[in-house]
This record gives sequence, structure tokens and C-alpha cells, in this order.
Amino acid sequence: MKRVFNFSAGPAMLPQAVLEQAQAEMLDWNGSGMSVMEMSHRGKEFMSIAAQAEADLREIMAIPANYKVLFLQGGASSQFAMIPINLLRGKTTADYVDTGDWSAKAIKEAKRYGEVNVVASTKEGNYTSVPAFDIWKCDPNAAYLHYTPNETIRGVEFAWVPETGDVPLVADMSSTILSRPVDVSQFGLIYAGAQKNIGPAGLTIVIVREDLIGETIAGTPAMFDYKIHADNESMYNTPPTYAWYLAGLVFQWIKQQGGLTGMAAINERKAQKLYAAIEASGGFYNSPVAADCRSWMNVPFTLANADLDKPFLTEAAQAGLTTLKGHRSVGGMRASIYNAMPEAGVEALVSFMQDFAQKNG
Amino acid sequence: MKRVFNFSAGPAMLPQAVLEQAQAEMLDWNGSGMSVMEMSHRGKEFMSIAAQAEADLREIMAIPANYKVLFLQGGASSQFAMIPINLLRGKTTADYVDTGDWSAKAIKEAKRYGEVNVVASTKEGNYTSVPAFDIWKCDPNAAYLHYTPNETIRGVEFAWVPETGDVPLVADMSSTILSRPVDVSQFGLIYAGAQKNIGPAGLTIVIVREDLIGETIAGTPAMFDYKIHADNESMYNTPPTYAWYLAGLVFQWIKQQGGLTGMAAINERKAQKLYAAIEASGGFYNSPVAADCRSWMNVPFTLANADLDKPFLTEAAQAGLTTLKGHRSVGGMRASIYNAMPEAGVEALVSFMQDFAQKNG
Repeated sequence: MKRVFNFSAGPAMLPQAVLEQAQAEMLDWNGSGMSVMEMSHRGKEFMSIAAQAEADLREIMAIPANYKVLFLQGGASSQFAMIPINLLRGKTTADYVDTGDWSAKAIKEAKRYGEVNVVASTKEGNYTSVPAFDIWKCDPNAAYLHYTPNETIRGVEFAWVPETGDVPLVADMSSTILSRPVDVSQFGLIYAGAQKNIGPAGLTIVIVREDLIGETIAGTPAMFDYKIHADNESMYNTPPTYAWYLAGLVFQWIKQQGGLTGMAAINERKAQKLYAAIEASGGFYNSPVAADCRSWMNVPFTLANADLDKPFLTEAAQAGLTTLKGHRSVGGMRASIYNAMPEAGVEALVSFMQDFAQKNG
Repeated sequence: MKRVFNFSAGPAMLPQAVLEQAQAEMLDWNGSGMSVMEMSHRGKEFMSIAAQAEADLREIMAIPANYKVLFLQGGASSQFAMIPINLLRGKTTADYVDTGDWSAKAIKEAKRYGEVNVVASTKEGNYTSVPAFDIWKCDPNAAYLHYTPNETIRGVEFAWVPETGDVPLVADMSSTILSRPVDVSQFGLIYAGAQKNIGPAGLTIVIVREDLIGETIAGTPAMFDYKIHADNESMYNTPPTYAWYLAGLVFQWIKQQGGLTGMAAINERKAQKLYAAIEASGGFYNSPVAADCRSWMNVPFTLANADLDKPFLTEAAQAGLTTLKGHRSVGGMRASIYNAMPEAGVEALVSFMQDFAQKNG
């Protein structure tokens, strides 16, 4: 077996130790004689797995007691609707920051339910920067403010958290959650699809301040009501049990890396190595993103000579460096270097990039 | 490692051969150097896995070309809302048959979106039978007729398919799909949560006649629109890739069992052995369900002396026969014997039941 360094934007690499534990336990979890996949979600075995995963996530992120942690299905795409449905609470307007493709999708879906006030947009600059907070046109009566701390496609990441006062702050952390410490108390709601830094696709984590839930728009499906999931401890219906279990293994792995402080140190080092290689290439490689908001997780870059894109991808794959093609809306390359990408993977990529530039420069 | 015979109603047993293949491929699928969990859903590896799974399901069920097969998230509970949202199509009423707890949940959710005409209910008889078709009060103008071919909790299964003429027939097959052949062309829509006969929890299969989709109620989340999923081949958002892969392995396993005809022969034999043991116990065990609608998949039974329930469960578990406790709303026992329960598991249960009756009779 030869493992590759897989730079996919998601679903993405998982820690090898997690996969090995899942492999060992596949037919018999902890002497139960069952795979975790086969367990009743209401049986004592799975209930213990679920509770441990939540406890570990609460510990890692220091989630205050007045926040509910929900383990849901449907991805960020479902959250784009669930957020206005649940958080408008009789108000008609919500604030949104538009910093990329995922912000734009959240905005489009929210418009089904109310008025969207776009407080700032970087679309004209091709989504390559973060708008300065002092130009945001916030509505003090907005039900909430939604932003995307890290844009997966363009690789634009906020290095700071907006201060929205009494307006609850809502963040799509799909591609940045667990990559560095955050102060959860600054947020009304944090959500993240699992398939980047948490576990396999099909699980969505929602962390929500409990006073914000309980009121929904008429005609809301039961499955889109946070309160119903919160009151049933994410077991109103059968949850995605195996994904929940794997998320728990990832949380334990993060604790072994020194928690979010430890992860942040590793992630910053990985990102700096890669950006430094781009900068040092004398223009052979280029980052389209403003220097103050370059993502630690998703690193898009272009080759000055686009004719070399194809050979770059082919030779990289031959070297065991896969899924480096940029999103079809951007072109070029993108290296997603989430928590589970080993530092050795980034080093291998940097080394390959240097060799490739030397040969073709 | 000692595997148990796990009679859970769902999530439930998976074929051991499937688990062993998943285990072997956990860190490296087919020489790709990646776990299936780590693959981009848009990469060629996962696209091939997804396409093969759909092709195999179409073959097993002989799904006509004018039906879409969707691989979704959210379970049957999401379908309870998606069905009226998508299939009312300007009409105001839908017909529902009420034969148990899951029918009742579907009815409750549908009432958020339109008028529900309950054409027949067996609630007064404690949901232990199937209502004769000639007493159903169907509305010829109903948008569709919804029924539950197998009620997981009470173990009541239709041995026949209602003939609803031009009114599309909608079936919650969560606990009976793939257990015997069905003529898909008799249905407008079939849906099933995966966690009984398909794969792990977190995947929902929807098979829908394509002329029925494309019109939704105002304010519908994009994720609840069948047409959006159909147009995007179930990749409007990131699908639950690992569950999809496992479902594909289960479909291949079913083909090895002789397809649905082969499965049906095995399932009928398993069910008959268990019901025969109940009947032969001289009243020590009893089936609450009418003889003409006893489920092949979920077999509830009671002990005449309920004081023996606890010792029965304890001793069964010691014998490697687990999760036999009846649903809390019914009491007694329930043995779920889905496709993946080996015939040897049913034989072990029957043998245990006979010994237990002899010791305690």
C-alpha cells in the first residue's frame, strides 16, 4: 500500500492514525461484536461514542455551556436555508458579507426567506481580499450577520473576527474549523460540513447559542428546526452514526496534536512554507490573494505560463501529489492543506514545485 | 474477534463480506493511495464508484429509464416533508394510509403543507393489521397516495401493492427495500433510509418518476427540491460519499445472493422459521400481528409471562443474540432480520427461544 498526499479541497485527507483505528475496529468495536455502522443509535455503545465525541469537541473548542452542539446531515448547503429559517425570529433582514463563492451561495439561499443586506463585497476584485471592517454597512436591526471566515475556492481567510455587538455573528467555518483556536462566545452560530477538518462527508456540525433557537418560519420541515434537533440531542431521526464516530476519532487525534493551539502552530508553519515557496519562485508561481488574508487551509496559485499547468499536474500526480487542480471557476492550482495533511506532504509539494520550476523556468 | 447476531431494527447488521472489503480498502482504494472517505466527490475515482452503485441498483430493482435514482441525506424524516413539498404540484390534498408509527409521522409532517386525507387507519386495532383495499376512501383528486409497505416498529407488512390508477403511489420502503422483488413501474416514488437494507445511516435513496418533479412549494430550501438533486446527479452539494460506496458494496453482495429473487427466498425462509417457532411454543411466545401481514423483516413477539422479558434479554445477549428488546412503544421483543442477518442467526435465535421456553415454561 502506498498512500498519496491528497490536496483535495474536500472530501479531504484524514489522519492516517484515525483510518487505521477505524480499520482495526471495522468488524468489532471494543469487543461489542459489531461494527459501529451496525449499532442502534439508541444502544449504550453508540450513545457512549456520541457523548464522548461531543465532550471532546466541547473541550477542544472550549464551547460554553449555553451553546448546543448538533450533529446533523445535509451539509453547509442545508445550513444556508436553516440559518434564516431559524434565526430571523420575526425580523425581515439579515446582514451578509460577500467574500467568495460560498458567501454568494449562502446569500442566494437566504433571499428565499428574507431581505439580505450585503454589508460588503469583494466580488469586483475577483474575491481576492477581505473587506476592511470600517467600510461595512451593517444594519443594527439585522437578525444576524453571516460571513465565511475561510473561502475554500479562492483561499481567502479572515485573520480577525468581526465585532457585531448585539447582532449575532454567524460563521460558515466548513474549511477552517479546528485549524486554530476561536473564541466561541463571539459567535451566535458556527457551522461546518465535516469533510475538510472533521471527518467524512455527510455530517454537519452546528454550534449554536441556545437563546437563538426555538422560533422558525411557518412551513419549516421538522428536520430544519434546530430546536427539534437540540431537544432530541441530534437523535430526532437516525443520525449519521459512522461519520459521528469518525469525527470523534479525529477530535481525539487533535487532542494528541496539542489541541487547537498545537494545530495552529503546525498549520501556520505548513502554510508559510508553501507561500514562501511561491514568493521565492521569482514569478514562476503566483498567489492571487492579498497578503493579509492568505488562507492557511486552501492555497491557490497560478503558473505564469499556463501551458505548464497540465505537465505540472501530471508530474505531481506521478510524484504522489494529487488533486492539485484549481477549482474550475478559478483555474490554476489549489493545494488544500487541512489539519490532516502532514507537514511532510507540504514539504514534498514545495520540493516538487522547486524542481519543476528549475526544469521549466 | 467474535461477531454477534445483532437483531437491531436499524442501524442494523451489514453483510460481513462487505465489512471485510471496506476494511481491506480503508487506507487505499484500488491502488489510489486514498480511502474512499478522502476522495473528492468530483474526482474520477469516486465518480466511478457512484456510477457503479447506481447501475447496480438499477439492475437489481429493474428500475425503468424514466425514473431518477437520488442518493440524498436526511433520512425518511426529511422525505416526510420533501414528498408533499415536491409532489403536491398545485393540488391541495394527498391520500395517506395509516398503518403504524411511521405512517403517522409521515402524516403529521405532510399536514404542514396540505390537507391529508387518511384513506384508512388501523390505529384502533393497535396497528396489528393491514386495512383491506376495498374499504379505502381514496380521493381521485389526491396529488398522490402515501403508504408504508413495512412498519418497522409493529412488524406489519403489506403482501400486496395498492392499485391507485392515475394517482401516483408513494412508498416508504425504509425497512423492506431490496428484501424482495417489486415492480417499480407501479410506483411514483419509492424512498428508503439506508440503515436497514442498504448501508450505513446518513444515506437516503429516492427513486422517482421524472415527470413528477420540478414544481415545489414557495420557500422550499434548495436541498429539499428533487429536481435540483436530479439535475446535479445527487452532487448539488457534497454527497455522503462513504455511505454511497458502502451501499454499492451491498448492491454487489445482493447480486451474489441471486438478486432480489434470491434474497426473497432466503428472507421468506428466515421469517417462516421464526414465526413457526413462535406458533409452536404453545403460547409461551405470541405474535401480535395478523397472520396475513407478518413482516419478513421485523418480527415482534411477546412472552406470555412478561416477568421473563428481562431474563430472556440477558440470556440471549450472553448467547450472542443482541438488540432483541421491543420498541419502547410496544414492549416485548422484536427480532429484525434484514437481508444481512444470516440464516444461521435466525436458527440460533430459534434454538435459544426453544431452550428458554423449555427451561421456563
